[in-house]
Amino acid sequence: MRIGVLGVGLIGGSVGLAARRRVGAEVVGFDPEPQTLARALEVEALDAAASTVAEAVAGAEVIFCAAPVAVLPALVDEAVSASLPDAVITDVGSTKRALIAGLSEGPVRERFIGGHPLAGAETSGVEHARADLFDGARWYLVPTEHSGGLQYERLQRVVAELGARPQAIDAEAHDRLMATVSHMPHVIANVLVQEAAATLAEEHERLPEVGTSFRDTTRVAGANPTIWEDIYAANADAVADAIDAVSGRLTDAARMIRGREGAAVGDWHRAAREDRRRLLEAEIEGGELFELRVAVENRPGTVAEIALALGRERVNIEDMALSPAVDMRTGFITLWVAGEAEAERGADIVRSLGHDVSVVGGEE
Amino acid sequence: MRIGVLGVGLIGGSVGLAARRRVGAEVVGFDPEPQTLARALEVEALDAAASTVAEAVAGAEVIFCAAPVAVLPALVDEAVSASLPDAVITDVGSTKRALIAGLSEGPVRERFIGGHPLAGAETSGVEHARADLFDGARWYLVPTEHSGGLQYERLQRVVAELGARPQAIDAEAHDRLMATVSHMPHVIANVLVQEAAATLAEEHERLPEVGTSFRDTTRVAGANPTIWEDIYAANADAVADAIDAVSGRLTDAARMIRGREGAAVGDWHRAAREDRRRLLEAEIEGGELFELRVAVENRPGTVAEIALALGRERVNIEDMALSPAVDMRTGFITLWVAGEAEAERGADIVRSLGHDVSVVGGEE
Repeated sequence: MRIGVLGVGLIGGSVGLAARRRVGAEVVGFDPEPQTLARALEVEALDAAASTVAEAVAGAEVIFCAAPVAVLPALVDEAVSASLPDAVITDVGSTKRALIAGLSEGPVRERFIGGHPLAGAETSGVEHARADLFDGARWYLVPTEHSGGLQYERLQRVVAELGARPQAIDAEAHDRLMATVSHMPHVIANVLVQEAAATLAEEHERLPEVGTSFRDTTRVAGANPTIWEDIYAANADAVADAIDAVSGRLTDAARMIRGREGAAVGDWHRAAREDRRRLLEAEIEGGELFELRVAVENRPGTVAEIALALGRERVNIEDMALSPAVDMRTGFITLWVAGEAEAERGADIVRSLGHDVSVVGGEE
Repeated sequence: MRIGVLGVGLIGGSVGLAARRRVGAEVVGFDPEPQTLARALEVEALDAAASTVAEAVAGAEVIFCAAPVAVLPALVDEAVSASLPDAVITDVGSTKRALIAGLSEGPVRERFIGGHPLAGAETSGVEHARADLFDGARWYLVPTEHSGGLQYERLQRVVAELGARPQAIDAEAHDRLMATVSHMPHVIANVLVQEAAATLAEEHERLPEVGTSFRDTTRVAGANPTIWEDIYAANADAVADAIDAVSGRLTDAARMIRGREGAAVGDWHRAAREDRRRLLEAEIEGGELFELRVAVENRPGTVAEIALALGRERVNIEDMALSPAVDMRTGFITLWVAGEAEAERGADIVRSLGHDVSVVGGEE
């Protein structure tokens, strides 16, 4: 199989690496940045570097467009016209409605199927590309009523062979979902730091060391402005709708709290606990999540040591958070492990390294 | 020195451990749960376990009430009546306005000074108590115009000896600050998981693996319901005001995003980045200690007034001593402040209250 990759950054490069090593495909890549293209060759993400889009897609059965949202419609058009008549063209962007609405009429609508791998947000650049970047990751496929069956099946198979877990979703549901679970946290973080900055300025106060809730909630405030301005623009309606919905819920909460509606406030708070538990449980098959809270000294290597020890004993870490104590010398690592027996087994392993561990779970 | 601890969970137990090991105090504790009390003795957080509140506070110079908000007013009253006539009584709760408004008239108002250590949120229970729990942690002291100077000075000193960094703040500013930086993240987390749960139910979707932003933002959703229902109730107005402010900012964001106001969205997102950076910028403490010697009249409220004025302008009091003159009507307060510039700034603030101040430093 021949695969074309247009744009060979972190995602495109990782597609190339995984496609070469796992699918046994021949991968030809193009990138408008000659240096990026050269690096992609160097890290062996590509078999060959093409000097034009047409050259990269010639003869390819699957074509990944890993380019910025703004250039995608034109790039997809070019790929469709220069490729085999049944080649499937896909993208890896994080919003879908605007892109699909902007596609040309004709064969593009049959052969382009949107894609969105949920991986790789933490870094960028082809130098971080990895063949296992997509291992176990959800990869949304966004077909429409015009999508060709052959194209969909081929794309689904290749994506699974890259290591990901493909799942179909329609564009509107995809964008609404992303607005709520991915874009809203960024909006919330922005708004919360701005409110805190205003309040603190008023009180001539410094940010007090309030444990981790404020830091956690605002961690993504102002994240990568270039990327996020594009995302807000590309998913504007769904994000604005999600903001309105959250704002309405906040207004309800303010009314309950101001009105001292003790029972209602209690129900609301406990329902949130239950909702989060169910939301996070849904994604794992191994049962309820338990928390291992590990008190540690804040020195290099501790987290790695714990992760390695658990990995060696095949205890799977579903999630992890670090909470440095205010003195920055000690702190907590919180690890989420699925299933009570696994959590207790994990706790014993971490204890054997000499750390203090408590297991908190699931119903508390 | 003898110290009474009422309620020997994580915070009370850690106060006991630190007071015994660092202050060299004799610590007597009481807890309504006999098992908790026994465990506190076992982990050596106490010298002795008392069977009543009166027995725990008899002869104590400082009394820490580490009990749920709901029982605090009655507990404080009991502690005041059963203790030495100049003992200082404090609490460790996370809201202050409602508590102070609910205090009895009379000696309670002179001898009770609210406290709030910002430590220990991650775990609970005396088995996790540590002598170093408060190391470097901010510990808010919340005096009022009725607070006794002797009581404030003694509490400030003990809190510093426990390892914490005491800072005076008035009750209203404290509660507003906590509403924004500590309580709002919990409200936001609740609302966001509920919106996500509703959206996912509608889409028949599972939570996608979207990296860490959703997890981070919602980590505290539904945290410890018993504690949080009390906090929402005790800080209802400040929390509701903070929610309204955040909700207003969200509405502005939705309008910008829906209106595709690219430049405004970009400015807003970048401003959030800058706000977060400034909020979390590490505060640099340190420098040589300078003494501020303040001549004062010996009447209730003076020490509190000075501490609050310095706290408001973020001058940190590292240590404090009262030197009553022989006539017991006038005296000196000596305050230690780190860094010459800070000391001079502090002196100007205290002078502006009408006191005579001299700065003595650093080489002595």
